[in-house]
Amino acid sequence: MKEYTQPDGVVRRLPKYYRYLSDLKQMGIARVSSKDLSKRIGNTPSQVRQDFNCFGGFGQQGYGYDVETLYNAIGNILGLNTCYTMVIIGAGRLGQALANYTYFEKKGFQLTGIFDVRSSLVGKQIRGVDIRHIDELSQFAKDNPVDIVVLAVPKEQTNEVADLAAGLGIKGIWNFAPAELSVDEQILVENIQLSDSLMTLGYRIKEAEDNQNS
Amino acid sequence: MKEYTQPDGVVRRLPKYYRYLSDLKQMGIARVSSKDLSKRIGNTPSQVRQDFNCFGGFGQQGYGYDVETLYNAIGNILGLNTCYTMVIIGAGRLGQALANYTYFEKKGFQLTGIFDVRSSLVGKQIRGVDIRHIDELSQFAKDNPVDIVVLAVPKEQTNEVADLAAGLGIKGIWNFAPAELSVDEQILVENIQLSDSLMTLGYRIKEAEDNQNS
Repeated sequence: MKEYTQPDGVVRRLPKYYRYLSDLKQMGIARVSSKDLSKRIGNTPSQVRQDFNCFGGFGQQGYGYDVETLYNAIGNILGLNTCYTMVIIGAGRLGQALANYTYFEKKGFQLTGIFDVRSSLVGKQIRGVDIRHIDELSQFAKDNPVDIVVLAVPKEQTNEVADLAAGLGIKGIWNFAPAELSVDEQILVENIQLSDSLMTLGYRIKEAEDNQNS
Repeated sequence: MKEYTQPDGVVRRLPKYYRYLSDLKQMGIARVSSKDLSKRIGNTPSQVRQDFNCFGGFGQQGYGYDVETLYNAIGNILGLNTCYTMVIIGAGRLGQALANYTYFEKKGFQLTGIFDVRSSLVGKQIRGVDIRHIDELSQFAKDNPVDIVVLAVPKEQTNEVADLAAGLGIKGIWNFAPAELSVDEQILVENIQLSDSLMTLGYRIKEAEDNQNS
């Protein structure tokens, strides 16, 4: 397994802090305590302080955090001033929904291509980005370096497409297929497994009902 | 914060075990060791045994696990023999992609309605399910009890719609909006935050590059 410098929990909380600070900034709030941050994030004030200490700490005893400073610092830590190029493989409904999600662009993730095996889709565009045949992917990636591949293909094709993507010199895969990928350790994989998430919710509902009935 | 009977890590691994066992079953494999399970899931053999011990344990020293038995047991634990009714609020691209994802139905989650504020969408159908105006939601939920609300609305409308949903007597919310919900503790919330996930991937890529350069 890949060894990370920062533990997964901290890194997963960073975008949440960032979103909350963005809300506070919009509301014109200048200062926030670790207590208020923890309430919103669902952890404890000491965890908040510990999280920020992983990156050098930004607070001041008795004052809390300056919203603007912390917002910018977390943005830098997350690398939101870096621009990543991204292609989507699989232009089915999920791939199309992702291609249309403009929020990513604001965070520095630029969609440069969409690929599919279905010739009926090839030649169409989503937000000005061409859908190309998957056979063109290797050449495309030579001409336009790709940082991130978004996998939105059916489960059965996942490993084949992941291997193809891994050969392109990419840095990361954002995987929506309900399958664990086995690619080179150098390639970072982030999974969004919709059905796992829904099953987890189903389990929690059942657990709550069982507890009520017992 | 809500107290769960089983820790989050275990519950989140259950769908992964379930998916892997389903693959093994399809391949005609009858028996699996905790070592093989752990390799696939990305934890340790002792964690695998510990996970299953939370639910009474299913293995036998020196034999491992019977794939069919374990698959059925985890399906039962996850409540996949239970049927939940589900409505989607927000029939934009993401809502439509989710409405079209038939995989959920196989796991017992039945889509019964789709709601939106846009009258241009009202009256259309996705997979035979009507898109209705959000104003009809309360009456609909009285006539057709709803277990789970899927929130696929823009961030700005999230809390208003979450409050509306919470008043319907639902059991859970599957939230795709990039916002933390503040609803009654009785309602279980499962978040899928796409932009958080992508930002996490961006962070990991940057971290790996920083490590290489240092």
